[in-house]
Amino acid sequence: MTYGRRLSMSSELTRVPNMHPFVGNDAHFSSGSDTPSAFLERCLDACAAWEPKIGAFVHTDIDGARAAAAASTARWRAGGPLSAIDGMPVGIKDIIETADMPTEMGSPLFEGWRSGWDAAAVTALRDAGAVIVGKTVTTEFAATEPRGTRNPWNIARTPGGSSSGSAAAVGAGLISAGLGTQVIGSIVRPASYCGCIGYKPSVGAINRGGSHDYYSQSCTGVLAASLEDAWQVAIEIADRVGGDPGYPGLTGPPRAPGALKPRRLVMLETAGWPAASAEAQQILQDALARLESAGVEIVTRQNDGQVAAVEEAIVKAFALSRQINGWEWRWPLRAFRERDASKLSRVMLERLAQAEAMQPEDYRGALVERNRIRILYAELASGCDGCVTLAAPGAAPLGLESTGDPAFAVPCSLLGVPAISLPLLQEQNMPLGLQLAGFAGDDVKNFAVAAWLVDSLGLAAA
Amino acid sequence: MTYGRRLSMSSELTRVPNMHPFVGNDAHFSSGSDTPSAFLERCLDACAAWEPKIGAFVHTDIDGARAAAAASTARWRAGGPLSAIDGMPVGIKDIIETADMPTEMGSPLFEGWRSGWDAAAVTALRDAGAVIVGKTVTTEFAATEPRGTRNPWNIARTPGGSSSGSAAAVGAGLISAGLGTQVIGSIVRPASYCGCIGYKPSVGAINRGGSHDYYSQSCTGVLAASLEDAWQVAIEIADRVGGDPGYPGLTGPPRAPGALKPRRLVMLETAGWPAASAEAQQILQDALARLESAGVEIVTRQNDGQVAAVEEAIVKAFALSRQINGWEWRWPLRAFRERDASKLSRVMLERLAQAEAMQPEDYRGALVERNRIRILYAELASGCDGCVTLAAPGAAPLGLESTGDPAFAVPCSLLGVPAISLPLLQEQNMPLGLQLAGFAGDDVKNFAVAAWLVDSLGLAAA
Repeated sequence: MTYGRRLSMSSELTRVPNMHPFVGNDAHFSSGSDTPSAFLERCLDACAAWEPKIGAFVHTDIDGARAAAAASTARWRAGGPLSAIDGMPVGIKDIIETADMPTEMGSPLFEGWRSGWDAAAVTALRDAGAVIVGKTVTTEFAATEPRGTRNPWNIARTPGGSSSGSAAAVGAGLISAGLGTQVIGSIVRPASYCGCIGYKPSVGAINRGGSHDYYSQSCTGVLAASLEDAWQVAIEIADRVGGDPGYPGLTGPPRAPGALKPRRLVMLETAGWPAASAEAQQILQDALARLESAGVEIVTRQNDGQVAAVEEAIVKAFALSRQINGWEWRWPLRAFRERDASKLSRVMLERLAQAEAMQPEDYRGALVERNRIRILYAELASGCDGCVTLAAPGAAPLGLESTGDPAFAVPCSLLGVPAISLPLLQEQNMPLGLQLAGFAGDDVKNFAVAAWLVDSLGLAAA
Repeated sequence: MTYGRRLSMSSELTRVPNMHPFVGNDAHFSSGSDTPSAFLERCLDACAAWEPKIGAFVHTDIDGARAAAAASTARWRAGGPLSAIDGMPVGIKDIIETADMPTEMGSPLFEGWRSGWDAAAVTALRDAGAVIVGKTVTTEFAATEPRGTRNPWNIARTPGGSSSGSAAAVGAGLISAGLGTQVIGSIVRPASYCGCIGYKPSVGAINRGGSHDYYSQSCTGVLAASLEDAWQVAIEIADRVGGDPGYPGLTGPPRAPGALKPRRLVMLETAGWPAASAEAQQILQDALARLESAGVEIVTRQNDGQVAAVEEAIVKAFALSRQINGWEWRWPLRAFRERDASKLSRVMLERLAQAEAMQPEDYRGALVERNRIRILYAELASGCDGCVTLAAPGAAPLGLESTGDPAFAVPCSLLGVPAISLPLLQEQNMPLGLQLAGFAGDDVKNFAVAAWLVDSLGLAAA
């Protein structure tokens, strides 16, 4: 398989990236002491230095971005920005359609393919004044086959997937935010590996029109340099194009909610716990001890029967999600294979074979079971303010052959609940995310509690 | 607007079409006394005679159809048909993607546009051996702007919309079945006008992947020459590609269920009643009297408080559906307008303006109200075997400027329940459908009761 970027990697590097949060700079943009154009140039400097090493983009449109930033600069100067993200440099995961750039979906089958229009989220971002720098690398069809992107903290390591490019680009400070999608663990895991915020919303919260990640657990979400940036990108999209058809869509304040101290948090082990390194387990325990010192009650499967029941149910989150996704993949993979089977990866063809062996009854049974687990989990809401766990079993693994283990990320996908990976931990001198899971439809509270966790534990990358 | 077919209409004609039910001919196909190739030729004879007058197709592939029918003929001869619809001549509403033909969506904006793959339902139809004769005319983006198709019973009249071509082609006997879509009244109404079966399934029952009718009430359904054909097309699709992601999909027996005599039916007036002609009202009352004579209890708003409450709720089905669809249209219409506003109809641009004036709160309120009404209606299920009403206020109106009044069809769209228009009535020497509405997820029972109604009342076209 020769599709994908070839990088001019010369040696293994380790760095702490310099991210560029955008939201919060209003006063500078209004006064002219900073401008979206100057902000973009700092990002483009980072691109020039890092993009050849990490390969976060499939396509860029630098001239277009500079023109958009200049227009934004004029709007801020005139006192009329279109939104709080007017001028924000962003990247669009290449599974999401853009009118002015190809959408290749990480597949040689779609090399150069253009839909001719903007996806719903992209339409909204443009309306809000965001500066689209380019399309970020996705694994093949947002599944597992990697496309060569490297982790900016250590280019010998994976950035995770499937939102590989958005995570790497944000983590390296090439853009303030990138759109991602998650149906298993494709936002939370790469955010953990690349040391940025990763926000996977409640299912249906952000309109997926024009995104080729169209399964029942799929969400469009945001990888960002700060919680404020993540919230702002999401709410500006939802305010303009809503959620998925039939869903109320993300609701909440016009700026990120302030910190809310949780009274009680559930610590979830998930199926990931046995796979987590001893160091990672200890790091989470240490963080929880700090939260307890701050007066937060921590509930676990050891001391709460309801939590134990949820743990027992979500241990099969991966198998159940694969079954559900498998059936939902049947048609698109069939259509892709009809076009040109030789351009699908071996993994993708195997998935199709598995899907074709399924019966409708298998799928229906999995849906019933998913719904049972969702109800079980929802019952936790009355007794706690969220659930914390790791976002990944440890630091990004060495090598680019795999995008890592999604065991910690998949439960929130199955549950359809909001999840945020916070870059609060470190392992092997690499970032590791603390994951905060919330409850379906209450993404605002998840952000508020996340803000308190950031205040209390401090950003590891800071 | 010059887009659309120009028809060689010379004078007003009135005819009773000669439909071609396919399912049930197994013995003939197996013995060779009839063959799918011969069956297709009879349909193509009807095409040659009628297509120039009614303009049901945007594109046809006669050579491809003949080749597919020959292959099917060989399979029947060898005793190995792929399904009960192996060899059935079908049409695909041109809002649904096909790999081998353009998908123009009734819009000059998409003239010649090719997606490059088959929609989920089309993939399934090919797998089942169906013979795809062509793409049938849809109004612009399956909304209201007509594209010139004429009613085969009287070519001075509309065939209805938006599934204009499928209804006209089936009604005229050019194909046994056509795929349609409905978000307001786009299957039930044209079926009523053209005198064929129109089946709008429970919401989510048939996979809409690759259909550009992607709103929360939208359904892919079937217009067919017989109940058996309608069921068979639907179940062969659902068995192969399921329902929409997250929905269980249509379930039921491998052949259409046998007739089930209802104990009790609700007669719904809907908001359509005051718009119905006095003759149409009387025709329905006469039919209900015949059902009562046969021992079926008929319940109405006059003698049942629960029915009265449902009537009061569904009277706003159209306004509420337009509000929901309006918000869900915002993004795609925006994307279309960005491409080329001059290629959108005035009506479409007005709809976009209305959608852009909406707030997310308006949409959320409408969803809450829709859900309330769905729950109210679902409570009827324990006390009756279905709801009967007209499928349209009367015969197809004269003229091609409008596709007619959807007032009787829209409640089932709002409710997400299965609905079947049965060609059991006549007005003005034209077909008029009796509509049978069921309950979400129980499409099988709706077919069984419909079969009993056909047996009891007799097909008007027969």
